[in-house]
Amino acid sequence: MKSLEEKTLSTQPIFKGKVVSLQVDEVELPNGKKAKREIIKHPGAVAIIAITEENKLVLVEQYRKALERTIVEIPAGKLEKGEAPAECAKRELEEETGYECQTLELVNSFYTSPGFADEIVHVYLAKGLTKKANAAELDEDEFVNLLEWSLEEALQAIEEKQIYDAKTVFAVQYLQLQEGLK
Amino acid sequence: MKSLEEKTLSTQPIFKGKVVSLQVDEVELPNGKKAKREIIKHPGAVAIIAITEENKLVLVEQYRKALERTIVEIPAGKLEKGEAPAECAKRELEEETGYECQTLELVNSFYTSPGFADEIVHVYLAKGLTKKANAAELDEDEFVNLLEWSLEEALQAIEEKQIYDAKTVFAVQYLQLQEGLK
Repeated sequence: MKSLEEKTLSTQPIFKGKVVSLQVDEVELPNGKKAKREIIKHPGAVAIIAITEENKLVLVEQYRKALERTIVEIPAGKLEKGEAPAECAKRELEEETGYECQTLELVNSFYTSPGFADEIVHVYLAKGLTKKANAAELDEDEFVNLLEWSLEEALQAIEEKQIYDAKTVFAVQYLQLQEGLK
Repeated sequence: MKSLEEKTLSTQPIFKGKVVSLQVDEVELPNGKKAKREIIKHPGAVAIIAITEENKLVLVEQYRKALERTIVEIPAGKLEKGEAPAECAKRELEEETGYECQTLELVNSFYTSPGFADEIVHVYLAKGLTKKANAAELDEDEFVNLLEWSLEEALQAIEEKQIYDAKTVFAVQYLQLQEGLK
């Protein structure tokens, strides 16, 4: 096996925002040549596969400015400083959907864009959902439309590009595989 | 359904690199309030689920500077300006693995990080692989280790966090679902 590591020669900070930071690293390649790497730093995120008593998947429609359109996603959000992923998952599920869950189980974690970003998403499975009384109030500041879809409806939404992001496609595939195991 | 659209009030360009650009948009939220959006622009990418005659998945181990580690991924690469995704998929497959394919079929496309980036990945299924004679030469400049794994080996690698990114987890789940259909 070849050695693949890229040694950092220098780091140039470009931008520090509320969500992402950007830096350009100069690296030494395995063959001794130099190259630049544009790197986005992100605090990491959680996403929640929440299943209702009626066996529906809880989804949120929201506007994504980066895409200039709305898409339908599983509830998700970024980690606050020092926040444990499971705590973040509970908080985001409540804030975005008004649901509390009885059980929460880590399904998988993955990097979303390893070519240029260190964002990792921790995906949880939430069951035993109960609606909080003040869900309607919470919704007002979140600018999301709450949806509850069957697996078939979610698969159709992938075809129609309403569901159009990696973590939600992962979630739907995960449910397909679980169904297949039954 | 609530209106969710965020109107652009202004766009501040921050950085224009070889891979990504960064801008900060000021937007008007549906309730009339203002907010900032940090947005990464990316040219888009392709990834290839390439299956050998022995029914193995072709993978590449490579160093990802953003993660400061190597991970194992399906072959992938970003779109050149004006390049059709299918052409890019053929090119990247050859450059990274030395394989030519007889058939190439679009499996799915998805955004990787819709919260802050417009990167889309088009995932292709490549079959009828034949090794090009000069594959060893191509490898020299790519800094990748070529791997060919069974579905079981790939699932094990997800457990062990060698496979650790969204598109490759998608690919492995896709193969699991195909196996289930047999």
